[in-house]
Amino acid sequence: MDRDAISKHTSQQFNKELTDMHAMVLTMGGMVEKTIGDAIEALVTGDAKLGDDVATSDYKINAMEVSIDEHCTEIIARRQPMASDLRLLITAIKTITDLERIGDEAEKIGRVAAELASHERMKGRYAEIRHLGDGVRSMLREALNAFARMDMDVAMDVVRKDEEIDREYEALMRQLITIMMEDPRSIRRVIDVMWCARSLERIGDHAKNICEYVVYMVCGKDVRHITVEQMEREVKGQIS
Amino acid sequence: MDRDAISKHTSQQFNKELTDMHAMVLTMGGMVEKTIGDAIEALVTGDAKLGDDVATSDYKINAMEVSIDEHCTEIIARRQPMASDLRLLITAIKTITDLERIGDEAEKIGRVAAELASHERMKGRYAEIRHLGDGVRSMLREALNAFARMDMDVAMDVVRKDEEIDREYEALMRQLITIMMEDPRSIRRVIDVMWCARSLERIGDHAKNICEYVVYMVCGKDVRHITVEQMEREVKGQIS
Repeated sequence: MDRDAISKHTSQQFNKELTDMHAMVLTMGGMVEKTIGDAIEALVTGDAKLGDDVATSDYKINAMEVSIDEHCTEIIARRQPMASDLRLLITAIKTITDLERIGDEAEKIGRVAAELASHERMKGRYAEIRHLGDGVRSMLREALNAFARMDMDVAMDVVRKDEEIDREYEALMRQLITIMMEDPRSIRRVIDVMWCARSLERIGDHAKNICEYVVYMVCGKDVRHITVEQMEREVKGQIS
Repeated sequence: MDRDAISKHTSQQFNKELTDMHAMVLTMGGMVEKTIGDAIEALVTGDAKLGDDVATSDYKINAMEVSIDEHCTEIIARRQPMASDLRLLITAIKTITDLERIGDEAEKIGRVAAELASHERMKGRYAEIRHLGDGVRSMLREALNAFARMDMDVAMDVVRKDEEIDREYEALMRQLITIMMEDPRSIRRVIDVMWCARSLERIGDHAKNICEYVVYMVCGKDVRHITVEQMEREVKGQIS
């Protein structure tokens, strides 16, 4: 092989490594998304076995995180990538940290679901929990789409959606407090459900974090820690 | 300058950049530690002004995160560091993410403290909250020491300490539930205090994360997602 051929080979190989890494992040994301769905199902339908399955299968998600993390660090060390590729790799490292923490939250919900299934069921509000759960799950799905296609518009939609989720979460909290005040004997169980709602709200935050990394990757602007309105102005300035 | 002198100059310059970055992480850590202390003080003494100060000064910590993050990425892009330096830089990027999230938790506690100060005080359990708060603050301090000196023993101590904190947190939760059951009118306020206790427990988790990065950096073993006992075996195997 002449030198050009080697260099072409090297860059093709490098591209393949990046594509593989990208696919691994999306596979991990898909696993996490399924886990959230199972955790919500277990909680809402009182399915102890499904809850247990969720709580005990978290190790698979953890193993994927470790493996992608090592893969990315190795690519950086070996390929010494320039600006945009490096940014992609660091975005991936951050994204999988959030995915892994979403897995932790799903694990907690699964454990509570398994525990609650053996007790008398809390009355009502399951429809609201499912709705909140579906909302954060779709946020994660969209966040992964934004990551897959590096799509800044989709990312911005998710960031906006998080505000809606926060309002829904606040309303649910007020309803749960009312249930406790009306029936103090239910306090212990309702508090367990509250932790689950809190976990769902956190999952929304993590999906939002992923979208902020995507915006950073695409337009090189660090948009964490600013309001949605400021973010929209920044992104607009970048595009125009 | 001859070539050796330039290369020496470059590596001295690079070392200075690493040392500066290291110092910035520790400065950020010190700010976060102070913020936790203030948040606990505001909550326990019912100091609305201090709570407000904590809630509104989070932006400084956020700004530090963004700045260190950019600094690290730029060093990686420009210096193309080899294995151990690269690992240090990625450890720093991960550490500041956890420090920033600790800042978020402190902000939440500050906000609740300011809100609660205008209501009738919950009876009792403030000593336990302070004790839990002092525990996680000392965990963070030790985690920063472990990072500063790359000290694996200190890091392992913190990981072990997290189990103690979890037990303390569970006990406090049970006490708070008892208060609510005995006086259902207190439910709303006690739940606010519960969120604060949960935030403190999370701060402990973040301090533990930082220590796991330190162990990874020192011995190149990914110790996340394994038990303390497994971790001790891994580390021992590495040293002997």
